[in-house]
Amino acid sequence: MDAAVRSEHALAASIEETLSGAMDSCTTALAPSRLAQAMRYAVFPGGHRLRPRLCLAVAASCGETNLRAAHAAAAAIELLHCASLVHDDLPCFDDAEKRRGKLSVHKAFGERIAVLTGDALIVLAFQSLTRGALHAPDRLGALIEIVAASVGMPSGIVAGQARECEPHVALASYHLEKTGALFAAATMAGAAASGRTAEPWRMLGERLGLAYQVADDIRDAAGNPEELGKPIGRDLALGRPSAAQELGLAGAIARLDGLVAEAAESIPECDGVAGLRALIQIEAKRFLPASLVRRAA
Amino acid sequence: MDAAVRSEHALAASIEETLSGAMDSCTTALAPSRLAQAMRYAVFPGGHRLRPRLCLAVAASCGETNLRAAHAAAAAIELLHCASLVHDDLPCFDDAEKRRGKLSVHKAFGERIAVLTGDALIVLAFQSLTRGALHAPDRLGALIEIVAASVGMPSGIVAGQARECEPHVALASYHLEKTGALFAAATMAGAAASGRTAEPWRMLGERLGLAYQVADDIRDAAGNPEELGKPIGRDLALGRPSAAQELGLAGAIARLDGLVAEAAESIPECDGVAGLRALIQIEAKRFLPASLVRRAA
Repeated sequence: MDAAVRSEHALAASIEETLSGAMDSCTTALAPSRLAQAMRYAVFPGGHRLRPRLCLAVAASCGETNLRAAHAAAAAIELLHCASLVHDDLPCFDDAEKRRGKLSVHKAFGERIAVLTGDALIVLAFQSLTRGALHAPDRLGALIEIVAASVGMPSGIVAGQARECEPHVALASYHLEKTGALFAAATMAGAAASGRTAEPWRMLGERLGLAYQVADDIRDAAGNPEELGKPIGRDLALGRPSAAQELGLAGAIARLDGLVAEAAESIPECDGVAGLRALIQIEAKRFLPASLVRRAA
Repeated sequence: MDAAVRSEHALAASIEETLSGAMDSCTTALAPSRLAQAMRYAVFPGGHRLRPRLCLAVAASCGETNLRAAHAAAAAIELLHCASLVHDDLPCFDDAEKRRGKLSVHKAFGERIAVLTGDALIVLAFQSLTRGALHAPDRLGALIEIVAASVGMPSGIVAGQARECEPHVALASYHLEKTGALFAAATMAGAAASGRTAEPWRMLGERLGLAYQVADDIRDAAGNPEELGKPIGRDLALGRPSAAQELGLAGAIARLDGLVAEAAESIPECDGVAGLRALIQIEAKRFLPASLVRRAA
């Protein structure tokens, strides 16, 4: 195993460890067992953990060697991401059967436990962030503000989700709120955990979030690539444009590449800027399956 | 208007002002309008604001004159209380038509907005607490920990609500979690905001919370006082004992009085102990309508 792969494994393991520690603190023997099970089910096993990886990469590139606050922020962001998936999947929203290859939380545990799972994960996010950053009280306030803004009102995830209930949806806000905001929290919190000013790091997260959204559109549409001219996904049903519909497969991939390039260009001056730029190009390749990229080439 | 009434009005006004400030920060013109409306609807006009009043009374009795952190904690606790009411009223839980004399949030705004209203209020609680206590970073961590524990897992409100989905309900835990925990957060946060150790203040909040629960049982049962021997409320339907069923009206009121007396006795030594004791007796009288107390005498 070469050094890069070893370091990659160590990073992945440390993210899971922080999440496990947070989960252990609230799913003790005292806890109601079904809710405790559902919370674990919603968080483990995870997806690519893109947001916490991004948060930690930014913190490291800012020259921080004591990463404890950054790890706490990374875990909080992932917990909030998981909470939003559980609530988005509820019958009153997407009524999703499956998530990450297994039953959605409300299908596996019932709707009541699913509502409470989302609530409990939101609370756990702020609780574990506070515990993990308590040794740096001068940074705690900024970290909570960044994380809360990315999920709350007026322009975090819940705001984005609420746009679906408005008579007119402003798509730019919708995508920035539903996807960009939490990626921006990841980059900004990584910087803030390292004692840097967070705001200059917003653009990096927002561009990557929008790139991820384009990738999501492509994955949906390319499920039936021969019909790419008229995909039959949810966006179409709801009258919402998707990058894949608007631009075709190759065009959408070009748009994705453009957003990733803009993201990489936006990185503020820091010790690790070259390494971070390279890493972002590598991470962005995970947004799409390799077979799909080859097919479009 | 005498001095006590003026001071009472000033306190009530200051609680509403802090809540309004928090709400204004997240329901700006940028926000999706229906979710913004629903958040305001869930919080204003409020009930008796028992929990924030209790929090501020404890902070004042601890000799704190700069009450900014206590006000922030009081508002956060009230926002979390409102969030729990919105989610408890959802169709998958109580399916309540009405709350505080008007339609429940999901009846007025739909289920999707109701789910998001609860989520957004939880986030706002932590955000506004952080903003309000930022000038006292050494107290912020303790305040967040106290507030988070009272709503999260393993023994806050969401845990209490989740007991309803367990095969066996431990009633003592259920009542402590659903009602006692947030009252305890009010007393403990009041002390912590004033730089005191919070734990000795737990008993005061828990006893008051249990007293409030008994009062709730009485109010339910006494809706048809002539049938008090066999009330037809939800607790009965679900096979859960209620104080009014177990003890009868007079017995339940005696139990309530006993809990309030225990609460008053438990107050730790502080400058304002005598005043706080008197205040708690007065506040506890609000738990029940005067007509009901007269009828049982």
